[in-house]
Amino acid sequence: MSLLAVGSIAFDSIRTPHGEAEEILGGSATFFSVAASWFTPVRVVAVVGEDFRDEHFQVFRDRSIDMRGVERVPGRTFRWKGEYLGDMNQAHTLDTQLNVFESFVPKIPPAYLETEFLFLGNIDPVLQLNVRRAFSKLRASALDTMNYWISGMPEDLAKALATVEILLINEGEARMLSGQNNLKKAAAHIQKMGPRFVVIKRGEHGATLFSPDSIFTAPAYPLEQVHDPTGAGDTFAGGFMGHLARTGDISDSNLRRAVVYGSVLGSFAVQEFGVSRLLRLAPGEIEARYREIKNLTHFDA
Amino acid sequence: MSLLAVGSIAFDSIRTPHGEAEEILGGSATFFSVAASWFTPVRVVAVVGEDFRDEHFQVFRDRSIDMRGVERVPGRTFRWKGEYLGDMNQAHTLDTQLNVFESFVPKIPPAYLETEFLFLGNIDPVLQLNVRRAFSKLRASALDTMNYWISGMPEDLAKALATVEILLINEGEARMLSGQNNLKKAAAHIQKMGPRFVVIKRGEHGATLFSPDSIFTAPAYPLEQVHDPTGAGDTFAGGFMGHLARTGDISDSNLRRAVVYGSVLGSFAVQEFGVSRLLRLAPGEIEARYREIKNLTHFDA
Repeated sequence: MSLLAVGSIAFDSIRTPHGEAEEILGGSATFFSVAASWFTPVRVVAVVGEDFRDEHFQVFRDRSIDMRGVERVPGRTFRWKGEYLGDMNQAHTLDTQLNVFESFVPKIPPAYLETEFLFLGNIDPVLQLNVRRAFSKLRASALDTMNYWISGMPEDLAKALATVEILLINEGEARMLSGQNNLKKAAAHIQKMGPRFVVIKRGEHGATLFSPDSIFTAPAYPLEQVHDPTGAGDTFAGGFMGHLARTGDISDSNLRRAVVYGSVLGSFAVQEFGVSRLLRLAPGEIEARYREIKNLTHFDA
Repeated sequence: MSLLAVGSIAFDSIRTPHGEAEEILGGSATFFSVAASWFTPVRVVAVVGEDFRDEHFQVFRDRSIDMRGVERVPGRTFRWKGEYLGDMNQAHTLDTQLNVFESFVPKIPPAYLETEFLFLGNIDPVLQLNVRRAFSKLRASALDTMNYWISGMPEDLAKALATVEILLINEGEARMLSGQNNLKKAAAHIQKMGPRFVVIKRGEHGATLFSPDSIFTAPAYPLEQVHDPTGAGDTFAGGFMGHLARTGDISDSNLRRAVVYGSVLGSFAVQEFGVSRLLRLAPGEIEARYREIKNLTHFDA
């Protein structure tokens, strides 16, 4: 089924203990769409500047990602510069240049209006709500957000949250959004705000899905080295929503599988800078790692 | 099969955001033996002072714990006073009085020498090694340790580690012991030091078992409130070793089950101060929570 991502496209400059990369493709819509493209056709709504050239569009085209919703406007593309130290659980932002992203107003091409699965990447919640309202045939919509919007625009965020089925959120941000330190209480609080399903991403500790009647927890795939954690959350979302859109099934048991696919895709993303590892996935690699997570969690009843 | 714990018995005074408790029964041998007593007969080697009265011994006797190895000597019992703030992941020690524990030299009653499963709680690694050497009929031995010994007595700890099959250790301490930040690398490093099986305890994030040929990860049981985390690690060890001794089976698949039993027992421990919830377990509660963890981790292949 059709899957649409609305979010950012950026050029990231990143330093980690394992190396550095300059002005590589990044942004929530980039990580999401490249990950989801392994499951289902994906379309993107985003904005780029004049410095976003054909070679950059080509990266998406090579993954058959529909970029008709990506506006190219005068100015420079969003840039982010960050650094990871020590255990790499926290990005330290060195520089943010919003550029054309500052005045981003998502424009949905008419051909996209029959979209059935929608991912609202981490952007202004007012824009998220407007985008959400443009669609009438959705099977499911998911939203991601961050501390900046939680603390700065709580009322607008609450309105957007009330319209989606699924929230994907980091552990710390779930605590901030709910005012609850305990994750079970935090999820229950958030479920009352709208989303029936709350997926709490816990980085190297995995992810937990809170459904109306059950909890599911999946580990992160154990890696010997995390090269660059940038985009892991959006990549998780891409694997998660990609599997849902591929199957068209939003039952609890299928959402559990989707969490594992999210974990699998996230594990590939962090093995190299940017989307390079995700672009290079070989047939069977996703399923092999899915089975490895099955083995990793298996015990006899 | 027979299970012996060597460790501390203490009176703990604890403050958490949910209340406080004064001079309640604690110590590694206490949490371990009470937890393990739900699986198999347990015997204890420890030391207490003259203030450790019959009512205290009675707590253990009520769980059929063999206390012949507990020496009662002149002086006061080990006391620890601590506090947990905010997210309760870290104990802040307010006061430590080693008292009779300072000159503890474990004495193994002859009747204990045919012990098959041994748990060396977090004590001086020289004592751990001496205890380990006293036994010749062991099926498996497990060791716990902490930052104090890792940084202060690395060579003695290495000697003790070389003699055991299983190390149970916190995430942060695994990093410290191995000098590896990545947990997979940390476990591989530690396995080279002796223990074939390394169980890394990750608190609210669960536990991971590194076996020679596989990795297994179990979540923590999700609780709405952690009342007092004191003793969670030793309780985990008690459930883990209790299941191994009950079954006499140290295959990888049985160690996986043991990790889940460890997680189950740990989850009960933290619901009340000290061992009070562990003492009150009803028949079937352990198995019910074991099945809940099965459901919590289940997804279709």
